Amino acid sequence: MKTSVFVGTSLDGFIARKDGAFDFLPTGGGEPHGYEEFMASVDALVIGRMTYETVLAFDEWPYGGKPVFVLSTRTLAPAPSGALVERLSGEPAEIVSTLSARGVGHAYVDGGVTIQRFLRAGLIDRLVVTRVPVLIGEGIPLFGSLSKDIPLRHVATRQFSSGLVQSEYRIGDERGPGEELPPLWR
Amino acid sequence: MKTSVFVGTSLDGFIARKDGAFDFLPTGGGEPHGYEEFMASVDALVIGRMTYETVLAFDEWPYGGKPVFVLSTRTLAPAPSGALVERLSGEPAEIVSTLSARGVGHAYVDGGVTIQRFLRAGLIDRLVVTRVPVLIGEGIPLFGSLSKDIPLRHVATRQFSSGLVQSEYRIGDERGPGEELPPLWR
Repeated sequence: MKTSVFVGTSLDGFIARKDGAFDFLPTGGGEPHGYEEFMASVDALVIGRMTYETVLAFDEWPYGGKPVFVLSTRTLAPAPSGALVERLSGEPAEIVSTLSARGVGHAYVDGGVTIQRFLRAGLIDRLVVTRVPVLIGEGIPLFGSLSKDIPLRHVATRQFSSGLVQSEYRIGDERGPGEELPPLWR
Repeated sequence: MKTSVFVGTSLDGFIARKDGAFDFLPTGGGEPHGYEEFMASVDALVIGRMTYETVLAFDEWPYGGKPVFVLSTRTLAPAPSGALVERLSGEPAEIVSTLSARGVGHAYVDGGVTIQRFLRAGLIDRLVVTRVPVLIGEGIPLFGSLSKDIPLRHVATRQFSSGLVQSEYRIGDERGPGEELPPLWR
């Protein structure tokens, strides 16, 4: 199974304000920058409880009919109708094994805490970061502490007229030609 | 007077490790990415005492014959022969007034603490950030807390075969056509 992160941050690296607000992101997500195409390539999502509770408060469930695995040791608030939500708990390696066994080929890992846990465990294959041209000073950081450096391979960067800058990186070796994730854009 | 920041960071936003080491940056600074051209446009540097002490330990004084203003309330260690070093202290606005009165048209503001102080004071005009494709987890951050959001204007981004990604941003309004800083590259 492959895992990808696809996330927007302020230039100073925050994915949300401390209270979870995204008001510094462009309204409506800005011009199209690959989210639809990326989501079409995803079989399932893996998010943490905090992200789950944040998106539950959205007007619309953002993950459509994709299976969403929420990492939590506690019972979850009920999912909206039509949403496919399942609670899981365990270390990132166990989550990856479970999802692989369930036939998930490509998982979207989202949410600050969860992204950091998977990065620390060496279980993120692809990182797509879209930088919004603003400094917000504090908030929920995308990245956190690590036990050792993680070298990345830059695939490509593209820029948008609104000022968004999107970079795709790979982590680790590719696991064989049949299993490669294609670049997000060419 | 215009002020620019030109800095390399890890993808997670650190300009150096906690002990000041830059070992995660590419050897020799990586492929040419505009530093020489940028330095040629600079009349003087403004750095903090910590950066001064860091560069004093380098084999070679990195600022050539450019005037270097070191912000410190304490006496500085002696500068190497040939280096033009002067100590200043005061708020960023006072520093800008002093340097303007001394005929400095374009100052390079460097060092984590000093960059953050000038950003908070609204006294950085241009930000050129070169991202190195590595996560290091902790270190000296480029950005710090702010009293309010700082919107940026993205000028352009370029990518290099080693994986460096360089983005140029402007802050605030241009102060008139005669005073504009030209884009760093086209």
